[in-house]
Amino acid sequence: MVEQFYFETDGFGIYDITEKLREVVADSPFGEGTLVAFVPHATAALIALENEGGLVDDFVGILEKWVPADGHYAHDRIDDNARSHLLAALLGPSLSLPFSSRSLILGTWQQVFLADLDNRPRRRRIVLQLHKA
Amino acid sequence: MVEQFYFETDGFGIYDITEKLREVVADSPFGEGTLVAFVPHATAALIALENEGGLVDDFVGILEKWVPADGHYAHDRIDDNARSHLLAALLGPSLSLPFSSRSLILGTWQQVFLADLDNRPRRRRIVLQLHKA
Amino acid sequence: MVEQFYFETDGFGIYDITEKLREVVADSPFGEGTLVAFVPHATAALIALENEGGLVDDFVGILEKWVPADGHYAHDRIDDNARSHLLAALLGPSLSLPFSSRSLILGTWQQVFLADLDNRPRRRRIVLQLHKA
Repeated sequence: MVEQFYFETDGFGIYDITEKLREVVADSPFGEGTLVAFVPHATAALIALENEGGLVDDFVGILEKWVPADGHYAHDRIDDNARSHLLAALLGPSLSLPFSSRSLILGTWQQVFLADLDNRPRRRRIVLQLHKA
Repeated sequence: MVEQFYFETDGFGIYDITEKLREVVADSPFGEGTLVAFVPHATAALIALENEGGLVDDFVGILEKWVPADGHYAHDRIDDNARSHLLAALLGPSLSLPFSSRSLILGTWQQVFLADLDNRPRRRRIVLQLHKA
Repeated sequence: MVEQFYFETDGFGIYDITEKLREVVADSPFGEGTLVAFVPHATAALIALENEGGLVDDFVGILEKWVPADGHYAHDRIDDNARSHLLAALLGPSLSLPFSSRSLILGTWQQVFLADLDNRPRRRRIVLQLHKA
């Protein structure tokens, strides 16, 4: 079953989408399986992280270490967001999340975030597939 | 079909869980499909790596480069394991592994490891879902 | 349904395999689902990236930042490709890609690449599993 939703971002940052995923799983036609979540965007990614304010800041901060803003990228000759693309490739566009009894199996401190790595606000699409176990 | 097992770690490090995954696949009710493996923990991850002693040390060593221990993280004002969380988000909680004839399709030098990124021994849960192809 | 194909690489670099994946999905016995793509090799990975020449160069270039060539790795006492293994573990061997109406749901600028991280030309196997949604 293919589901999808849209999320309006404020630009570069990470956004907790766990509740939306929980809703889709709660409405699943079967109780047990895997939710495949995917962002069909070249400058976005999906990650699992605890939703704690300091940690959210830490994550956004360390992206600079992984792909420095002053890296002199070849792609920036035709666009200005090479860094966004490189971070998206590093973090990855998909997560596979198991569920049981129509409930996501996540750790107590484990949430799912959309990472918008572009340098401006964007409307992002998240595609979800439910697979029966 | 949902399966799970527990693994007692000695703390920060990586632990080969390939044999356990092979056992679950050998007992699969169907021969061909995908095994989704997932750790429901905010400070753990799953990776694929060759199980060679030097390489295991190299991997644990390079985690320091990716998320330095002396990074002055905001999360450390309320806890002491920001680094563990950031590494878990970078490496990711899940792997999707194809199998055929009830046998995982892995490279000769490719094993699956639980990465415990926390700074103390932990009892870790690994959730497994078998999906028919 | 298990599919697979082989790709001859020129060594260290990334190779667009999107068209091959599209063909497999176009021939799927069902219209909607998830394609699990996996490389059964310890020194290869799968990534999503825009296929723009500058960006491809940028990606190959930044691998040096993530795992430096001059890192003095323990694995290099028995082989010469510790770096290849560490990059493969960082980037990961699998991608889960949703499709609908027998067409991959990818962003306009989002392609799928095989990353060959070894230091010589290799014949690489890519395993594909189609799962009905």
